[in-house]
Amino acid sequence: MTEPRTLEVDLGARSYPIIIGGGLLGGAFDLSSHLVGSDCLVVSNETVAPLYLKSLKKNLPDRAVHSINLKDGESFKTMASVESIIDCLVSAHTNRDTTVIALGGGVVGDIAGFAAACYMRGVAFIQVPTTLLAQVDSSVGGKTGVNHPDGKNLIGAFHQPRLVLIDTDTLVTLPDRELRAGLAEVIKHGVISDAEFFEWLEVNIDALLARDADALAHAIHRSCEIKAAVVSADEQEKGNRALLNFGHTFAHAIENCLGYGEWLHGEAVAAGMVMATDLSDIEQPAGERIRDLIAAAGLPVLPPAMDAKKLRAAMEMDKKVRAKRLRFVLLKSIGEAYIGTDYSESLLNKVFQNAGL
Amino acid sequence: MTEPRTLEVDLGARSYPIIIGGGLLGGAFDLSSHLVGSDCLVVSNETVAPLYLKSLKKNLPDRAVHSINLKDGESFKTMASVESIIDCLVSAHTNRDTTVIALGGGVVGDIAGFAAACYMRGVAFIQVPTTLLAQVDSSVGGKTGVNHPDGKNLIGAFHQPRLVLIDTDTLVTLPDRELRAGLAEVIKHGVISDAEFFEWLEVNIDALLARDADALAHAIHRSCEIKAAVVSADEQEKGNRALLNFGHTFAHAIENCLGYGEWLHGEAVAAGMVMATDLSDIEQPAGERIRDLIAAAGLPVLPPAMDAKKLRAAMEMDKKVRAKRLRFVLLKSIGEAYIGTDYSESLLNKVFQNAGL
Repeated sequence: MTEPRTLEVDLGARSYPIIIGGGLLGGAFDLSSHLVGSDCLVVSNETVAPLYLKSLKKNLPDRAVHSINLKDGESFKTMASVESIIDCLVSAHTNRDTTVIALGGGVVGDIAGFAAACYMRGVAFIQVPTTLLAQVDSSVGGKTGVNHPDGKNLIGAFHQPRLVLIDTDTLVTLPDRELRAGLAEVIKHGVISDAEFFEWLEVNIDALLARDADALAHAIHRSCEIKAAVVSADEQEKGNRALLNFGHTFAHAIENCLGYGEWLHGEAVAAGMVMATDLSDIEQPAGERIRDLIAAAGLPVLPPAMDAKKLRAAMEMDKKVRAKRLRFVLLKSIGEAYIGTDYSESLLNKVFQNAGL
Repeated sequence: MTEPRTLEVDLGARSYPIIIGGGLLGGAFDLSSHLVGSDCLVVSNETVAPLYLKSLKKNLPDRAVHSINLKDGESFKTMASVESIIDCLVSAHTNRDTTVIALGGGVVGDIAGFAAACYMRGVAFIQVPTTLLAQVDSSVGGKTGVNHPDGKNLIGAFHQPRLVLIDTDTLVTLPDRELRAGLAEVIKHGVISDAEFFEWLEVNIDALLARDADALAHAIHRSCEIKAAVVSADEQEKGNRALLNFGHTFAHAIENCLGYGEWLHGEAVAAGMVMATDLSDIEQPAGERIRDLIAAAGLPVLPPAMDAKKLRAAMEMDKKVRAKRLRFVLLKSIGEAYIGTDYSESLLNKVFQNAGL
């Protein structure tokens, strides 16, 4: 077994490590030493818990381990789920010295993290992401929250974990469709800030789809490095953290119009990145290379058929709307993104037409 | 009209002013310049809104002012109220650049502040407290949250306001019972950290009950100074901020057993302070002076008749329980408090007996 890779999210007193490797839930990592308090609550879902909850518990022999399994899916990313977690913490008589552990994908992590942020005004939190998307993106950076019927992630908090533990062995059980959805965020990291990593992805996309362990470990590590650097520089998204939202203004609107859960988040991001690339003043063949890599990853390059007006209205509800003009993350080139409103309305209309809307 | 008194809560980048004076809602203060964004949401309740909402709105001529009025009372300090506020923000299409303004007592401030903390992971927040209790205590320090059926303030966040605007004229409409409840927290500030202020209260308690404007302004100002100093030194209650909970372990349990809203918070705190004084190794006549001042303020010195076992169980659910032994804020003398577990079980039993339980 190779040594796990370790990196640090640098946030002063709230800094924390990300540990990436195989066999970490099998006992190759001392999880227990990272917990606060004598008890903990593992939040998982009905799909992931049967696979990994037992292993996780074995790593915590000296703790009272409570657990709750949510239903699986974005449609359960609601305040009701947060309240069910808090009910669990209350009925287990846990106090401020407890730890909430998220075991699952991005939905589980977002809900569990928000519950940890709210319970007694904030208790310790650990992320154990089991999907590629959560490993390369949502488990890092402290964004937690749930959806409102009228918009994604409208209710939430910044609440950093104390540890992100990424056992790459969990990807063995991940459905192909979810693996591809995770690759959308990996590709995004290359597109917005690392042309060399983007090239590496072009060369290695087939190895990643074939779940080559070394390739996946490298992609996860580099993605986490990029995300950690961005988050360290701008924890609360006052500025450049918004670059991580490349493709997401379109994606959130797609998910909102389609109904959460119809498309996976990564699939919507894939189509959204193609639209955002179209909206950018980027030279060819860079735009084509982005579209080709997304297609090679087996991801959609077009949004689903939907009412363009509805999509536009949903975009305007997006959190990034300021001064009544939509701001987008745009590209200068592969590896260089910026936040701007310097697109023409006619180009935006053309993007919608190109997308078949 | 005398100049308003101003003081600062020193929290680095999150520092904010507290402005105390008469006529501030009548136009003597430029509220608008403290807002973020072009719109705002005023959260009030059905009792306070008819009295002061119109004045408040007049101070914001250049803003789109939305408003929501909650039902009045601690029993509405729930997640459902928070969600109704968030629904308002969503349907008004407000974005991150908005300001939530709490206009009312402690319950309104706690709920509105938590909604502001959660909406889009945190928007700007201003406190305009209209009860003495909120002016001297709950509006300062950033504690926000709601109750869980099994415990007070179990769900919440630290979310500092940008401004606390205390118009002392609002006390004119405050019912006597609520004025007295506010004095409980004023007395608490003297007891835990300022013997001189405690003596001043002994001399001026009748003037305060008679609503002498100068006396009230001094009591509010000194209370805010004490609270601001404690909060600045320990924002998230890792240490000495807990001193502000003097009497509150008993008080929260009383409120929990009695049902929220039967007694006002300040009334429960009054009885709780007498119990906490009894539990302290404090020389006479200091203990008697504390009891006498509480009685002179027209506040209860005994808890209501209730089952002692139930009260004990409720105390153990309190957030401050650590290592399975109850920790209390105890007194060395008037003006000097500490956090300890150095009380005997027999003394705790005696405190319950003295309280008629």
